[in-house]
Amino acid sequence: MALRLYDLAGADAGRRFSPYCWRVKFALAHKGLACETVPWRFTDKDVIAFSGQGSVPVLVDGERVLHESWLIACHLEDAYPDAPSLFGGEAGRAAARFVNEWADAVMLPALLPVVIMDIYDHLAPQDRDYFRTSREKRLGKTLEGAEREAALASFQRLINPLRRTLRAQAFLGGAAPNHADYIVAGGFQWARCISPQRLLEDDDPVAAWRGRMLGLFDGLALNAPGYPV
Amino acid sequence: MALRLYDLAGADAGRRFSPYCWRVKFALAHKGLACETVPWRFTDKDVIAFSGQGSVPVLVDGERVLHESWLIACHLEDAYPDAPSLFGGEAGRAAARFVNEWADAVMLPALLPVVIMDIYDHLAPQDRDYFRTSREKRLGKTLEGAEREAALASFQRLINPLRRTLRAQAFLGGAAPNHADYIVAGGFQWARCISPQRLLEDDDPVAAWRGRMLGLFDGLALNAPGYPV
Repeated sequence: MALRLYDLAGADAGRRFSPYCWRVKFALAHKGLACETVPWRFTDKDVIAFSGQGSVPVLVDGERVLHESWLIACHLEDAYPDAPSLFGGEAGRAAARFVNEWADAVMLPALLPVVIMDIYDHLAPQDRDYFRTSREKRLGKTLEGAEREAALASFQRLINPLRRTLRAQAFLGGAAPNHADYIVAGGFQWARCISPQRLLEDDDPVAAWRGRMLGLFDGLALNAPGYPV
Repeated sequence: MALRLYDLAGADAGRRFSPYCWRVKFALAHKGLACETVPWRFTDKDVIAFSGQGSVPVLVDGERVLHESWLIACHLEDAYPDAPSLFGGEAGRAAARFVNEWADAVMLPALLPVVIMDIYDHLAPQDRDYFRTSREKRLGKTLEGAEREAALASFQRLINPLRRTLRAQAFLGGAAPNHADYIVAGGFQWARCISPQRLLEDDDPVAAWRGRMLGLFDGLALNAPGYPV
């Protein structure tokens, strides 16, 4: 076994906050695969230059170098077919792709302005200029211009499809969690690792699901350095 | 075989425009099940009173009376296990539930103001007061107050997760369509049956998928009375 994941870290090397890297860490745990994680900062471009990529997650699996959380999950599913399935078959994989696109296009952009100053505050000093410049360009405003309260209300509204689903079933995967859950849980773990901001009301079905996700794999997410939810 | 579907119709009994009934009709075709459809209007409450419901779809399957498109799809999947699967397993079913909730909470409400006057114009005379009163209450404005152009732009933006998914794969179900596709196609068929409004740019991956959906089952959706897309 020689799995190695380059994993986004803050000033504190233990504070691993990338939502995409969390998807991979959940997927590795689901597959029962041990993996070395290497703390990586936004400006460590040279460290992953061998992969041809400029950002993480980058996973080294023996001879293979993989990147991008969805492709990595598909690789793990296909390369380790005897381990528990991440998708529960091809229809499950195809529909999880929709969850992935929803999370990337709707959920994470909605969450970003809620936690963006908290991310900034946890960054290694050498990453701060890069982060400010790239994110201010993406947002079209200064980091300080992100309106947290309005963004939080918008986030809570936009996760309504998730809320409705989790009112009807325990996990996006059904009775048990699968990669669809890890996709979304990665977003919540992103927030938890760097932000004290409360995101959900106690009686939100998403909050109960989030608690179940934190407990998985002997508290993989719960035990990572972060804030109480 | 004694399957009977109560299916929302306009003034023209052949114009069957309910997005929820279309999900069921696609699902029945996928399962290869013949089904009698009964045109039903919003004010025909007495006709389905036996079901305990006030709206369609209502499906009578022998001794059983089913309602609500998701529950009907689950019934068809479980009652006809030897016919082609609508979900491709339990993980596929669980993730399709998320697609269902997204369509109900995001896609259909976004589409409603785009086509609402077209729906009104196609209704049977006896349905018009009911429709106006209930929908104006839901929208918080008059039917005429729905801003079609702004609503269309919003709709096109909100279906971005669908667009991104269909850029990566032929169907929400993967290489072949399944119930996740029928859920979303129901929404597009709703529009097509009663509205000449163009919804998608030609180069939108969703448009190409929509064309594939129209062709399924010998043109089930394409041959239904409606407008060109």
